Amino acid sequence: MAGFEAATAVLPRPGAGEYAARLDPAWGIADKPNGGYLLAVLARAAVAAADGAHPHPLAVSAHYLRAPSAGDAVVTVEVLRTGRSASQVRARLDQGGHACVEALLTLGRLGTQTEPWYDDAPPVALPPEQDCPRMPVRPPGGQFDVHLMGVVEERLDPAVLGFAVGQPNGRAELRGWARLADGSDWDPLGLLVAVDALPPATFPLGSLGWVPTLELTAYVRSVPAPGPLRIRQQARLVQDGRVDEACDVWDSRGRLVAQATQLAGVRVPERPPTG
Amino acid sequence: MAGFEAATAVLPRPGAGEYAARLDPAWGIADKPNGGYLLAVLARAAVAAADGAHPHPLAVSAHYLRAPSAGDAVVTVEVLRTGRSASQVRARLDQGGHACVEALLTLGRLGTQTEPWYDDAPPVALPPEQDCPRMPVRPPGGQFDVHLMGVVEERLDPAVLGFAVGQPNGRAELRGWARLADGSDWDPLGLLVAVDALPPATFPLGSLGWVPTLELTAYVRSVPAPGPLRIRQQARLVQDGRVDEACDVWDSRGRLVAQATQLAGVRVPERPPTG
Repeated sequence: MAGFEAATAVLPRPGAGEYAARLDPAWGIADKPNGGYLLAVLARAAVAAADGAHPHPLAVSAHYLRAPSAGDAVVTVEVLRTGRSASQVRARLDQGGHACVEALLTLGRLGTQTEPWYDDAPPVALPPEQDCPRMPVRPPGGQFDVHLMGVVEERLDPAVLGFAVGQPNGRAELRGWARLADGSDWDPLGLLVAVDALPPATFPLGSLGWVPTLELTAYVRSVPAPGPLRIRQQARLVQDGRVDEACDVWDSRGRLVAQATQLAGVRVPERPPTG
Repeated sequence: MAGFEAATAVLPRPGAGEYAARLDPAWGIADKPNGGYLLAVLARAAVAAADGAHPHPLAVSAHYLRAPSAGDAVVTVEVLRTGRSASQVRARLDQGGHACVEALLTLGRLGTQTEPWYDDAPPVALPPEQDCPRMPVRPPGGQFDVHLMGVVEERLDPAVLGFAVGQPNGRAELRGWARLADGSDWDPLGLLVAVDALPPATFPLGSLGWVPTLELTAYVRSVPAPGPLRIRQQARLVQDGRVDEACDVWDSRGRLVAQATQLAGVRVPERPPTG
């Protein structure tokens, strides 16, 4: 079993709709699992509960209550409705008796070869992969490890990387390539990690603080083709301690395969964005 | 009590966390309540259950299971967590013993006078209100009434209205002005209607069919200033019978006050988009 499959595996428990999960420290930052990784764990349990009829997440919305730590957790799933083309499911992740993430999922079956009827989502332009620096597990001067960068090989466009050397460009957009570091291919569940794998789009604004996700919604549009993903993360409004981020993900054919939005908390410096 | 407040009123019932609602046919299409209006009813109950600590919806995600009809419904609310700055709530709307909409809400308190720290969301350009035709309750040649256009005074930019006269422009964007027809001002709950009040962004593609929402996520960013809203609705990918739509809403000061995405079902003609 490849790294991602093992890290998101769930095991049925005796209780109705209950699954055991073990949150893997490799898919997080310091000892906190990544929010997209938690979505993938929830989706794995939801697909199991829907009993194979609808193997793919189409739309997933999660509200984050408490950040769990790496280690044992329980996912409780309730199938709300099973239809012909979709199942709708509620899933919750608990740890130590505390609810950590609550999510709603619409599951279905994604096409692999479908042609778009209308496509106004051209892939983001990027330099070749080898010209984009790989994100390190321990950023220069960083206080903790971004373990996720060990299992996801992420290469950002040098044009957006000024923030890493104290020269933020003042534009809330990050973009780059992503592969699974163990060489396995992305799948629909993996895309739930991809939509939350880039650094916060507030970094190029000179705001380098932690950005805890309040809500994350992801739509998965196709089974991704083998090869690297292109990912773009953008923010539009930072206000009142909150920021919106929109993430688009294209596969190696240049198809939009996932899109997501999140609302996150943010602490900003008193001075306006630099750039 | 103004029209919108009355139409979204909820009354506590004896059961724990239960509220009675009466879905108003004025806020729908044919006999089906609008999806944004249903969100507002759910949010009204969620705010009541959170007991006034957090009076505004910050992030709302809903999955639509069955379209309810106008008439009596029950909203069941469970408060998942109450924190200092936010409460997180689950809410479900049932009618006739069937679950119709399940939603997760993060509630808080919006600023009224906050200045953005970073704002890359300029308001959509529109001709003056009086130069934009008001959307009728019964479209020319239509088979049913869009009652919502009676309570929301919606005026679309003539440049996007070709679809209404059989000349779709081939670009999946609609934009226009919106006021509450009874003259009352928009409030944060009303913005949940505004993000789902425009016709489908697929209409300018020559696809005039119904677009049932599967999932809708809305972020409310500010208490809107008095006056008309500017609304833009865009779609990017129509594929596999599904379309994404992104909606942005600005108040009369030109501030982004709400933003939303939805994933909806769509039936398209066999021929490619016209325009």
